[in-house]
Amino acid sequence: MADEVKLYRTWSSRFSLRIVWALHIKGIEYEAIFEDLSHKSPQLLQYNPVHKKVPVLVHKGKPICESLVILEYIDETWKETTPLLPQDPYEKAMARFWAKFVDDKLLPSVQSVFTEKGYEAKKEALVPAVKNLEIIEEQLKEKKYFGGESIGYVDLVLGWMAYLLDVFEEVIDLKLFDAHKFPLLSGWMKNFCDAPAIKQHLPPRDKLVTKYQLLHEKYQTTSN
Amino acid sequence: MADEVKLYRTWSSRFSLRIVWALHIKGIEYEAIFEDLSHKSPQLLQYNPVHKKVPVLVHKGKPICESLVILEYIDETWKETTPLLPQDPYEKAMARFWAKFVDDKLLPSVQSVFTEKGYEAKKEALVPAVKNLEIIEEQLKEKKYFGGESIGYVDLVLGWMAYLLDVFEEVIDLKLFDAHKFPLLSGWMKNFCDAPAIKQHLPPRDKLVTKYQLLHEKYQTTSN
Repeated sequence: MADEVKLYRTWSSRFSLRIVWALHIKGIEYEAIFEDLSHKSPQLLQYNPVHKKVPVLVHKGKPICESLVILEYIDETWKETTPLLPQDPYEKAMARFWAKFVDDKLLPSVQSVFTEKGYEAKKEALVPAVKNLEIIEEQLKEKKYFGGESIGYVDLVLGWMAYLLDVFEEVIDLKLFDAHKFPLLSGWMKNFCDAPAIKQHLPPRDKLVTKYQLLHEKYQTTSN
Repeated sequence: MADEVKLYRTWSSRFSLRIVWALHIKGIEYEAIFEDLSHKSPQLLQYNPVHKKVPVLVHKGKPICESLVILEYIDETWKETTPLLPQDPYEKAMARFWAKFVDDKLLPSVQSVFTEKGYEAKKEALVPAVKNLEIIEEQLKEKKYFGGESIGYVDLVLGWMAYLLDVFEEVIDLKLFDAHKFPLLSGWMKNFCDAPAIKQHLPPRDKLVTKYQLLHEKYQTTSN
């Protein structure tokens, strides 16, 4: 039943897309509710009073917030279809460790290249971002996906990189990612975006470029 | 076997103590290795090359890092004894949500009252910290512990508050916590510290005061 699962999202939220992809990979029917973050709906504020953010998954009337928490909930609730996390406790711990690394280290470091003002500051911010990319590249050795032969938890968490990195590069006019230096990540990005459950649920590139151009302009002109 | 489980920790690390308590609650025999963070051991750097931090749990020679990840690993590996997380996926998601709230919001907000320079700045930093305490207080309604009748995952994650808040208050000479305003948290702090598995594994208060006095002095004298 479509009304059993609802997802509060926006068209471009990186954290919401993780959930969209997971629901499609698992074949879970759901209703998407698109939020305008400048006018958040009373439902969103009621379901996520602490953070007031998307994504929120509502299952049988009960809300779950925070994308990593939602992904684990989905995997534990619909466990018969396509597992996202490994079953072995050690392998599962590793997946959680790398998901946390992506959210706590990699994403903020790439984000800061985008937000820093001016070429020199951006070049400086690139150093830790590249270091984090090197760490993640290592994890793909002898694997198609972080989850092995199929897309799993860490792939979904890192998914923003696969479609957003070259949008960032176009907008800030700076090379973030050298495919020769990161052959495994480069292959992963292609495989990830080509997977049907992902490909059909990526935001339109031209709309992303426009969105991030406006955002970048704002970052470059406002004082810190 | 004692050499099966090793914990790299320091005497006072709040994140290490979560693991110490979990191991004792579960009755897991382990060897504690005390690190000097100004001279990290080659083993610590080898086991946690990404963050180079304690705690690291080594089980059968395999390292697990990040305290929240370690807690889940312990709960999934030694599942026969005293569960830390609820079994129901929704209840489990709620526990994960609140643990994340403690680490992402509550802890940094309390920490910033400690690190801010001068009385006025500290008073200002107190506003979001108190707001976060109010949110957490709400979660204790009709419960002894966040885990219900016994100490669970969220209790361990929030455990630093139970023994450290009044150390902070003494060191910075500012009331952080009004017991009348937070009767449930106040009761929880007492119950938590009195529980045998916790009480026997708390750092000595006088040593904590000395440590945080030195740290506070540093924060108050160095430029931001």
